Amino acid sequence: MPGRRQPRPHRSPAPAEPAALAVVPGFRAAGMHAGIKKQEIPDLALIVSEPPARAAGIFTRNRFPSPSVQVSRMHVRSGECRALLVNSGNANACTGERGLRDAVELCRRTARAVGGREQEVLVASTGVIGVPLPIERVRRALPRLVRGLDPGGFPAAAEAIRTTDRLEKHGWAQVSVGGRQVTLFGMAKGAGMICPNMATMLAFFFTDLRAPAPALRRLLREGAAESFNRIQVDGDQSTNDTVLLLANGLADNAPAAAETSEYRAFASILFPMMRDLATRIVRDGEGATKVVEIAVHEARTNAEARLFAYRLAGSPLVKTSFYGQDPNWGRLMAALGDAGPGLDPQKIDIFYDSIPAVLNGISAGTRQEARLRQVLRRESFTVSIRLGRGPGAFSLLTSDLTHDYVSLNASYRS
Amino acid sequence: MPGRRQPRPHRSPAPAEPAALAVVPGFRAAGMHAGIKKQEIPDLALIVSEPPARAAGIFTRNRFPSPSVQVSRMHVRSGECRALLVNSGNANACTGERGLRDAVELCRRTARAVGGREQEVLVASTGVIGVPLPIERVRRALPRLVRGLDPGGFPAAAEAIRTTDRLEKHGWAQVSVGGRQVTLFGMAKGAGMICPNMATMLAFFFTDLRAPAPALRRLLREGAAESFNRIQVDGDQSTNDTVLLLANGLADNAPAAAETSEYRAFASILFPMMRDLATRIVRDGEGATKVVEIAVHEARTNAEARLFAYRLAGSPLVKTSFYGQDPNWGRLMAALGDAGPGLDPQKIDIFYDSIPAVLNGISAGTRQEARLRQVLRRESFTVSIRLGRGPGAFSLLTSDLTHDYVSLNASYRS
Repeated sequence: MPGRRQPRPHRSPAPAEPAALAVVPGFRAAGMHAGIKKQEIPDLALIVSEPPARAAGIFTRNRFPSPSVQVSRMHVRSGECRALLVNSGNANACTGERGLRDAVELCRRTARAVGGREQEVLVASTGVIGVPLPIERVRRALPRLVRGLDPGGFPAAAEAIRTTDRLEKHGWAQVSVGGRQVTLFGMAKGAGMICPNMATMLAFFFTDLRAPAPALRRLLREGAAESFNRIQVDGDQSTNDTVLLLANGLADNAPAAAETSEYRAFASILFPMMRDLATRIVRDGEGATKVVEIAVHEARTNAEARLFAYRLAGSPLVKTSFYGQDPNWGRLMAALGDAGPGLDPQKIDIFYDSIPAVLNGISAGTRQEARLRQVLRRESFTVSIRLGRGPGAFSLLTSDLTHDYVSLNASYRS
Repeated sequence: MPGRRQPRPHRSPAPAEPAALAVVPGFRAAGMHAGIKKQEIPDLALIVSEPPARAAGIFTRNRFPSPSVQVSRMHVRSGECRALLVNSGNANACTGERGLRDAVELCRRTARAVGGREQEVLVASTGVIGVPLPIERVRRALPRLVRGLDPGGFPAAAEAIRTTDRLEKHGWAQVSVGGRQVTLFGMAKGAGMICPNMATMLAFFFTDLRAPAPALRRLLREGAAESFNRIQVDGDQSTNDTVLLLANGLADNAPAAAETSEYRAFASILFPMMRDLATRIVRDGEGATKVVEIAVHEARTNAEARLFAYRLAGSPLVKTSFYGQDPNWGRLMAALGDAGPGLDPQKIDIFYDSIPAVLNGISAGTRQEARLRQVLRRESFTVSIRLGRGPGAFSLLTSDLTHDYVSLNASYRS
């Protein structure tokens, strides 16, 4: 047995709901091609709430945050949010003073077009770094985008926030909160550069829940800790990561303050959706062919387990061995030995799913080899590592390092 | 101008010297196929010194050192070294008690075959982790290996220590030390998993210099700091890294104690050879098509500059952009912003060779694009980063991340 198992993200409803279902009271959305991307594909999304929503946000910890992040971080504190404008194809990052002016200008234009103040608009951007936003194209596109706003427009908006994503990443769910039906739509973008603290990832959640702002912030933080902050594709944290939760209160439930039964009821649909979208981001990791859970048990502390899990997930040699379907546990041992002091190799056990590869620091025997190879052929499996040091545990999802990853990233700008 | 340049490793004599030249008084060497590797290629090397040599060593800091490393670390302290036995094809790592018995047994057998005590024999191993050494094959091969010992055998020994290496990695040089001719032969192995502290790398230097043991240790440490500890291929530190310097004193020079003119004369051939072998290791990085110097200037301290340089060299997104010949400086900025606190983006300048890509944190202008692309097409170039924080500087050599890297590492064991 590979030790205590972490709960695994479970499936939310199939990604392609009937459009009629992908509706949240009070919200309208639209997506279109504004000309930011060269190809004729959607690159601009707008979501509007009437009445204005309360908002909570988590943003990148990269020290060079995009002006879009800087502006949204300020605006989310203002409490009320009427609109969210998202562009793909351009990160508006490392664009200096001009980038900041552009982000503010986008908020002002959007506020003018949908009503309200510029502080009530949030913006997010994803794409190439260092190229100024083609602001004139966004300006020209805005009126048409506003005319296109529709309660059934969420899937179109979700389409417009994608960059190198192949998989759809949105979900819809309902739950009874103190007798009132509450609806949730979530959309995400992300297929590379994924690492702790939600690197290069956008995820937006829209609900008619009524909840005080501190509860929304807490929901987002708790949910992210179990989802977007437990995934790793290639280790760089981007300048643009943004996770937002907008709640307009139309469900008129008893306020879902932290730790109330209303809070927990809503969390029961929000957290699985966050885990599901996070899993799809890993599955869609640039060029990925496999989703691998790395579960570290019996570390001294959870923080130590986390450190080892990320060290293994960040090793190119470990990731290529997954791609090669090779139970090359020697690379796991070498990475563990390189990661930190104090480990006793003789206490280490390693399993691929339920098959032992290492027991007490040495090979579990060559007769396991064929069974290990079978596990490695699966599209997803769990590598469990027991360190024999204490009660600490942490698990994350990661992907393999493939030829397609190199192809995609060697030519992304061209 | 891209700021103050670090001295770059300069060429030592071409790798393929006439065999007659690759001789060091008192040393004999041999290499052969012992059956450790499946293919019929050399996998066992022996170098013997008569008289016994003084030895100094630097070993991996990986917490799970191979038993070969554990044994050699002890033996190198004993002061005298008669022989070095090196096998490729098997790392003798994560092999538990048996691995330790095997390493000691190899020393004992070798001592018996060449004369002397087992403490006077050093061993080193490289190859697959977790599989016990085929000790019986090594035992059977030893007598033939000893019979093959020859003053001109260094190149054959150098051939036998290689694994996935494509390039030859050895060099020979002479210098006058206080009127006496001193000779040096060096050989190295390494083409993947290269990172600070000489990960998965073997390098051995043999000389007839006369020098006290503390001076030998210092020569090795100073030389490694400017060579093997400034290279990065993929970031994992191996269980087996070993750098050794053996000096048998036959040149009969005045003892080259630290900081004497004799010491400096010998350093003038040792350090360039170490830099040259280190550069060849990067050039030979698994699947590498480019050697890139990353030079960080104007950091607060040298240690901070080093941290940023390794962070950039360790980013798969940065490394694939080199492979794609894409001056995608946004990835450098994102990685810097993700690396540490306190950086002011507006003070950052980035050059590819002498062409500016970023000035004051934003694009140096689209008219640089064509010139930048020309630089990226070179087989080697320098990325210079000025942080505008202080006097700290550090540079290292790294390689790109390529399709061949993935191919080689997805199938290494198979």
